[in-house]
Amino acid sequence: MPRLVMKFGGTSVADLERITNAAKKVKQEAEQGFEVIVIVSAMSGKTNELVGWVDQTSTFYDAREYDAVVSSGENITAGLMALTLQEMGVMARSWQGWQVPLKTTSAHGAARIEEIPTHNLDEKFGEGMQVAVVAGFQGIGADGRITTLGRGGSDTTAVAFAAAFEAERCDIYTDVDGIYTTDPRIVAEASKLSKISYEEMLELASLGAKVLQTRSVELAMRYHVTLRVLSSFEDDISMAAGTLVCDEEEIMENNVVNGVAYSRDEAKMTLVSVADRPGIAAAIFGPLSEAGINVDMIVQNISEEGRTDMTFSCPTDQVARAEKALNGAKDSGEINFHGLVSDKYVSKVSVVGIGMRSHVGVAKQMFEALSREGVNIKVITTSEIKISVLVDRKYMELAVRALHDEFELEHAA
Amino acid sequence: MPRLVMKFGGTSVADLERITNAAKKVKQEAEQGFEVIVIVSAMSGKTNELVGWVDQTSTFYDAREYDAVVSSGENITAGLMALTLQEMGVMARSWQGWQVPLKTTSAHGAARIEEIPTHNLDEKFGEGMQVAVVAGFQGIGADGRITTLGRGGSDTTAVAFAAAFEAERCDIYTDVDGIYTTDPRIVAEASKLSKISYEEMLELASLGAKVLQTRSVELAMRYHVTLRVLSSFEDDISMAAGTLVCDEEEIMENNVVNGVAYSRDEAKMTLVSVADRPGIAAAIFGPLSEAGINVDMIVQNISEEGRTDMTFSCPTDQVARAEKALNGAKDSGEINFHGLVSDKYVSKVSVVGIGMRSHVGVAKQMFEALSREGVNIKVITTSEIKISVLVDRKYMELAVRALHDEFELEHAA
Repeated sequence: MPRLVMKFGGTSVADLERITNAAKKVKQEAEQGFEVIVIVSAMSGKTNELVGWVDQTSTFYDAREYDAVVSSGENITAGLMALTLQEMGVMARSWQGWQVPLKTTSAHGAARIEEIPTHNLDEKFGEGMQVAVVAGFQGIGADGRITTLGRGGSDTTAVAFAAAFEAERCDIYTDVDGIYTTDPRIVAEASKLSKISYEEMLELASLGAKVLQTRSVELAMRYHVTLRVLSSFEDDISMAAGTLVCDEEEIMENNVVNGVAYSRDEAKMTLVSVADRPGIAAAIFGPLSEAGINVDMIVQNISEEGRTDMTFSCPTDQVARAEKALNGAKDSGEINFHGLVSDKYVSKVSVVGIGMRSHVGVAKQMFEALSREGVNIKVITTSEIKISVLVDRKYMELAVRALHDEFELEHAA
Repeated sequence: MPRLVMKFGGTSVADLERITNAAKKVKQEAEQGFEVIVIVSAMSGKTNELVGWVDQTSTFYDAREYDAVVSSGENITAGLMALTLQEMGVMARSWQGWQVPLKTTSAHGAARIEEIPTHNLDEKFGEGMQVAVVAGFQGIGADGRITTLGRGGSDTTAVAFAAAFEAERCDIYTDVDGIYTTDPRIVAEASKLSKISYEEMLELASLGAKVLQTRSVELAMRYHVTLRVLSSFEDDISMAAGTLVCDEEEIMENNVVNGVAYSRDEAKMTLVSVADRPGIAAAIFGPLSEAGINVDMIVQNISEEGRTDMTFSCPTDQVARAEKALNGAKDSGEINFHGLVSDKYVSKVSVVGIGMRSHVGVAKQMFEALSREGVNIKVITTSEIKISVLVDRKYMELAVRALHDEFELEHAA
């Protein structure tokens, strides 16, 4: 029988009514003939309650105990979901991570999935189980202790199950009805994409579109798991609903640009007149890395002879720490620069599209559109399927709207 | 190293402050040189929340899913307790039932403990673990699914661990500071016993003193586990605190009577003029048993030739069902009686004492004391270490006080 993985996030199982609503969708798929694996998160708010208790209990807590406590949230949902399905006449049972078992590394709190043996679930499916409800976000380490997977762990669990059980698809039910060409709060005409490639989704996810965690998309791409993002609050679960995230080859005709992403609170920092010598980049970014600064864009300009300007971006709230690290490195003689200029009020705007690979002129079109609106570009970086620019923060919404308009994304699909 | 089991009930771990308070006691014992096994209940209110969700989800729920959901409560406490101990510098870790593993039957919701292999905990104690915090009330069935032990399961878990690990003692921390000669709400002069035998405790537990569950006392008696009941809200944990429940031989001199117990809401039912023939008791109590009636005392009086009166007691709220069952059996010809008289307003009062075995005259002394107060005795039953009587409910408190006074229990210890 074909298999399907369905994943419901915290808001989709926030209370018994929503669990019932989610269970109805599971039942529909089971009745279509799928053997279904459902991955559930904790009821929203539950995890925060548990984490709050752990935080109050100890400052430098033992991550193994953190995992033992926090994983309870998903276990509760899994049991309640199984009961709800049984009440609807569906043969369901719950599985905690260690029961499957979902084997992970022992990096408690941020474990990585190592293996999902399929024999236990296979056996129960063989005995007539229609639905396995699996507690997401958790597994078991080699030492027999419970692990949790860290941020985005439930999405990742879902994709890993879809890969291990060769599921036809992995449906991620969430509180939005798909992937949009941009944030509808900024551009009212933003349109829902019916399909998007893994590569584009990765760029969009890491650029600030928060629907799917980067890690789960990477895993889906590696194992060719077809993902679908759709709303748990709408009735339609037919293939017309949501957005498919899939291999590029499965998308008949690619749009040149598929989305405009943004990241609001960025800062631009420039080291003015740095002595330009081999190893200088390492000398600069070493201390920043040690200070935990998330450096994003990096641009180096030739200035006067033997010296260079080095510009990079990072989140606004890390500027003070970055300045401290760089000035410290200057004081200790590791690096030498004349000035450090920080601009804390910039934003990053990016256009993403797999079609860029075969279309020249996207960059020119982008820069012209911004220029027409009087938006000054401060930094540019490009990859094969993405162009990002830094602009003054006050122009961010304007830039997003201009680009969405320029690439006619209101008609994308 | 000597081992100690410490059990904390729901009110003793109701919030983080109380968990900290309990952890301090555990630390004290660990510093005395004990390897400590701590058994914890769910934070009070948690289990009710979980059970409430299950009840709302489905009417005839799958007990396996019930167990998976409800056991989460104890897991949370175990993790938080381990973290709290670590914060205090104690080498502690949490254990869920399946990790120990505590092996049970597969009677979900009411499983019985089958085996507690000691090697996992032994190994960790060998590596320096000072305290194992075990989630109470739960285990794992042969099918690899989580089980719960049913009513009183946490006390039973504690005693079973004490037996398996040959602990020096099993301390049950609760919200009262020991076993009293009677309910202090009825008799202000009730005194705390320093020691009591298993047999007496069993009589008191099943007679309505709610401190220890019958099942855990039975288990302690079978394996000669010394139990101690003491308050988690008082600082003293020295051997002067609480009440020891132990083998009769360990109590130097037994009081003739050690306690007065009562059960308020009892009913007395009499079948008048039953045809007296072999098998008549079975014919009467068969239908009652099938109807789920908890018959307690049974008395048979000879009345006129060939006929007898049969009197029994049961909880007041089961009278209607009992009447229905008996009248049904009469209608179908299984039994034959002239009348059925129910008195729904009686209470049971009992005196318990292992010293009764060697002292005659306790019954006489009891009946005279009640007579002096004008309390009419309606039914009497006796066992080796207990005498119970049914009296009108309005005389219950009076009877308890009179007996407590008569046997000078205010001076018991």
